[in-house]
Amino acid sequence: MNIILLDSNNTLADGFYGLTPRQQTHISNVIKAKQGDILRVGILNGKMGEGVYEPPSEDQAGYIHSLSLSMLPPEPLPMVLVMALPRPNMLKRTLQNITAMGVKHLYLIHSAKVEKSYWQSPVLATESIQQCLLEGLEQAKDTVMPNWSLIPRFRPFVEDQLPDLLRDKVGLLAHPYLAKSCPVDIQEPCVLALGPEGGWNEFEVSKWLEAGMESVHLGERILKVETVVPVLLSRLYPA
Amino acid sequence: MNIILLDSNNTLADGFYGLTPRQQTHISNVIKAKQGDILRVGILNGKMGEGVYEPPSEDQAGYIHSLSLSMLPPEPLPMVLVMALPRPNMLKRTLQNITAMGVKHLYLIHSAKVEKSYWQSPVLATESIQQCLLEGLEQAKDTVMPNWSLIPRFRPFVEDQLPDLLRDKVGLLAHPYLAKSCPVDIQEPCVLALGPEGGWNEFEVSKWLEAGMESVHLGERILKVETVVPVLLSRLYPA
Repeated sequence: MNIILLDSNNTLADGFYGLTPRQQTHISNVIKAKQGDILRVGILNGKMGEGVYEPPSEDQAGYIHSLSLSMLPPEPLPMVLVMALPRPNMLKRTLQNITAMGVKHLYLIHSAKVEKSYWQSPVLATESIQQCLLEGLEQAKDTVMPNWSLIPRFRPFVEDQLPDLLRDKVGLLAHPYLAKSCPVDIQEPCVLALGPEGGWNEFEVSKWLEAGMESVHLGERILKVETVVPVLLSRLYPA
Repeated sequence: MNIILLDSNNTLADGFYGLTPRQQTHISNVIKAKQGDILRVGILNGKMGEGVYEPPSEDQAGYIHSLSLSMLPPEPLPMVLVMALPRPNMLKRTLQNITAMGVKHLYLIHSAKVEKSYWQSPVLATESIQQCLLEGLEQAKDTVMPNWSLIPRFRPFVEDQLPDLLRDKVGLLAHPYLAKSCPVDIQEPCVLALGPEGGWNEFEVSKWLEAGMESVHLGERILKVETVVPVLLSRLYPA
């Protein structure tokens, strides 16, 4: 947690913000802050800066006051990520990491090679996903919560929603066995579609290509999802 | 395991290779290969290609024969990675992932902010490290085993070994709070020094800079080690 993110849930009174149990634990046990210490804080979807810490007492929980917020959050990545739903034990880390890297628009989509059982995972509950995204923001020092949607049915998305997304963006289909090498530093917005571990099936590839996506690969080496995502994002937008 | 890697330990007779228990388990349970199936194989530190599978029988363990090896392993990254020793539960995955990406020269070095206890971890035993590196090769479809050294003392390395490494390579110190943005697509060999989670301390930074390393950063976002490494490597060598 590299920044304390505050929102309306934290507000005690004008200029005074209470702390969630997670935040209090981090401040007490990791930062080990004392009364009057300056902490790095941010307002969710707002600016970042500093605030003054008041530790818990017998009568009162800990809180932050005297905020000074002058920094804008870091630039987002100008892209939409459409990602086949990862396995549940990868999903949390994946959501945190893509958020930390600056993805603001995310669709988690079904694919033939995604086990149907993954869609039943409790990690997919709204509060659970929001928590993962929040942790990504806290890691990276960002405030802007990504938008996200669950897309349990592949075909309607690719036929009905994707054309609108592609109107003003280049479409890139990460697929190891076709076409050209993934471009470096594209300097324009994109829709990036990332398949499951087994890859998109033939039907899915044909639907993506039909909609106007270009197939790109990352070379001969087969990388795990946890490595592929940072490699792809940093290759497309290194700056 | 995307390739079955064979070495002298596997050799039964000329052209016949036995399988380790791990390999046999993968072939039986994941690939579900049958007699006569063609499997992707490679010779450790040698070429890659295919071989014919013979399943286990009552009398005999499973083996591979009739190898056809015509492919060279993928290009390595032209770099030396000097990395502060990660925490034990990160070390295995880190070794696998950097190997999968093509790092062939690795030093695991001490830093003031590395807990001394990390150096006692059983993950650091030679066979354990070799196993992690092997798994990285099997993931990526590569055969060339990286060279690696443990450097429990920071100062003698930076003073005595580093100058030789820098003779024909640019030196880059990944350090968030100084100097210039990490260059993209450097097209030359480098020594990359990656600090612990808390960063290098002032003394260590001064020693790196004194030896001729340049400090580079990755921008405002603070990323976890598991994300920083793929981002850095793919930024320096995107091709």
